[in-house]
Amino acid sequence: MDALDAILSRRSIRQYTAEPVPEEAVRTLLEAAMSAPSAGDERPWQFVVITDRRKLDEIPRIHPYAKMVQEAPVAILVCGDERLEKHKGFWVQDCSAAVQNVLIAARALGLGAVWCGVYPREARVAGFRELLGLPPEVIPLALVPVGWPAEEKPPGERFDERRVRYDRWERTG
Amino acid sequence: MDALDAILSRRSIRQYTAEPVPEEAVRTLLEAAMSAPSAGDERPWQFVVITDRRKLDEIPRIHPYAKMVQEAPVAILVCGDERLEKHKGFWVQDCSAAVQNVLIAARALGLGAVWCGVYPREARVAGFRELLGLPPEVIPLALVPVGWPAEEKPPGERFDERRVRYDRWERTG
Repeated sequence: MDALDAILSRRSIRQYTAEPVPEEAVRTLLEAAMSAPSAGDERPWQFVVITDRRKLDEIPRIHPYAKMVQEAPVAILVCGDERLEKHKGFWVQDCSAAVQNVLIAARALGLGAVWCGVYPREARVAGFRELLGLPPEVIPLALVPVGWPAEEKPPGERFDERRVRYDRWERTG
Repeated sequence: MDALDAILSRRSIRQYTAEPVPEEAVRTLLEAAMSAPSAGDERPWQFVVITDRRKLDEIPRIHPYAKMVQEAPVAILVCGDERLEKHKGFWVQDCSAAVQNVLIAARALGLGAVWCGVYPREARVAGFRELLGLPPEVIPLALVPVGWPAEEKPPGERFDERRVRYDRWERTG
């Protein structure tokens, strides 16, 4: 799929078929994630790939907006690792870029995915920490359930020229 | 360009030719930015497109790692707007996804771009606030200088299987 098409047509997909997601596709999503830029190329990320049905089914108890994970064959938890941060204060941005790459890559592969925010909600962070045995320095940022789409959505048409200024705050195009 | 190729081959480009970047290309980058997902679809972003040569040349005094902007024909400042946040604590992630879309879209258009981190470095935030007259609720997150590449870099090969776990922190693939 064309890159601009993938970016512009990506939507949050929350319904999936029962078809499994091949390991190679998950590997491609992780390659995409790790191709994100990061502050000083610090790459402060860690990933937990969750396919264990029991674990996936427990997630809605941890995360109030992640019910779709009970249908998803796989979910990727993107985490920041404070031990890997060279430039303090940038891990959230670095890991968010990785998440966005996963979403675009999923779209390119014909998969559906959705960004479920975890950090900075303390209860969600604690819930994933316990569910997956994460060490204290590893902070779950976002859960990305992934599956073959069982819903179709048109492109979002989200461009809004009122959000664009030129050279100064006051100057619009 | 193919979406996966764009993601996997994107590199930070810091050298640009003198050729201008067409307005339509800048518009495409902004469309890509605003196609990012956000918490509750809050879209807490604002963009300042900087093409004023004098302003661009002042930026390295504000940002220690943005010297390349003196060569760039345009730079996009991606900002968060606290007034637009519905879900407190997520604007950095939302705006980071927008930045990453700009980088991938630039790559797809054959342009070069680089993510220069601004927030949470107080001095950089204050510098851009003063340079562009940003209101207090608008927080500059990242500057993205954009131009036609005057350097070539091979794909990063950043995949690292040690960063991937399965179903539990201890379990590797």
